[in-house]
Amino acid sequence: MTDGSDDIQALIALMARLPGLGPRSARRVVLQLIRRRGGQMAQLAALMERVAQNSRECLTCGNITDRDTCAICTDPARATGEICVVEDVADLWALERAGAFRGRYHVLGGTLSALDEIGPEDLGIPALIDRIARDRISEVILALNATVEGQTTAHYIADALEGSGIAITGLAQGVPIGGELDYLDDGTISAALRARRRI
Amino acid sequence: MTDGSDDIQALIALMARLPGLGPRSARRVVLQLIRRRGGQMAQLAALMERVAQNSRECLTCGNITDRDTCAICTDPARATGEICVVEDVADLWALERAGAFRGRYHVLGGTLSALDEIGPEDLGIPALIDRIARDRISEVILALNATVEGQTTAHYIADALEGSGIAITGLAQGVPIGGELDYLDDGTISAALRARRRI
Ligand SMILES: [Zn+2]
Ligand SMILES: [Zn+2]
Repeated sequence: MTDGSDDIQALIALMARLPGLGPRSARRVVLQLIRRRGGQMAQLAALMERVAQNSRECLTCGNITDRDTCAICTDPARATGEICVVEDVADLWALERAGAFRGRYHVLGGTLSALDEIGPEDLGIPALIDRIARDRISEVILALNATVEGQTTAHYIADALEGSGIAITGLAQGVPIGGELDYLDDGTISAALRARRRI
Repeated sequence: MTDGSDDIQALIALMARLPGLGPRSARRVVLQLIRRRGGQMAQLAALMERVAQNSRECLTCGNITDRDTCAICTDPARATGEICVVEDVADLWALERAGAFRGRYHVLGGTLSALDEIGPEDLGIPALIDRIARDRISEVILALNATVEGQTTAHYIADALEGSGIAITGLAQGVPIGGELDYLDDGTISAALRARRRI
């Protein structure tokens, strides 16, 4: 009985395992939830309960949804000929917040990794190839992270689609908006210099 | 529909307001909870529900408990003559983890602040004075933070207990175990030097 009741201790231990938290943050979060009036913890618990019960992966694209097929895949206003391939649902959300893409997505759920024994099947790449063949896709945008793993995976998919006549593109690399050269890594600066454009 | 269903969005918004989290961490936490198999989110929801329903403040010391009086206040093995005054339940937990104190506690729930209009009554200081008079206390340890607010509050309590014949003590200040002088602030170094001891 150091950290209050057993339930409180168990809650802290569970929260401490969440990404970005740790034992200290978990203790602060739980204390704040207990202290706040207005039943905030009960509200959070009820929402979690509902999300846990209703969330599943879209059978078409892998997005998280409460239906068989997600709202993006069923939106008639979105172009069906462009598929944007992302590593993770968080990346899909980031692109949607930017509001710059109006086609459909495909969520891989990771990257190829020999070390972790993650192969093309584990990422649904065969399903992606099938989908591209079936749906008359004109462009596949490989919006994978600019990491070694992301780019290895992008090259694997690009190779698999070679000769299909489909445009395979990737996100431009360069200096982020508002980015200061002094704070950027050398790789980004080199890539931005190589891809320089007339202004 | 940028962040998935409305429930998921609401859950992210609620989690983003927790201490130490923000929108980005909240999104990562919620995604990981949805993805993990084994119903981790449902388990977390159930625990939160129980903790939210059962947690309250100990009527004697202000610790968080699921009873009227906490396990520390009712533990016959703990000394009744020593009260350790802390700002927050998190501080009580830290002292319990250290295992160095075997008396009772008093949780103020904050510090005196003219700016925020927090006076002695808001911190239960009159109740503390009453408790000290009633319970035959021999020592009051003011384990408040080494901040201006913490020390102001400590001095206020020490003044209020002056002439009572009770020993009023505070935590020693100095170099933390493993602390490197080069990384410590000047105030800590000065305090450690003033409180120097023969070795
Ligand atoms: Zn979908
Ligand atoms: Zn108590």
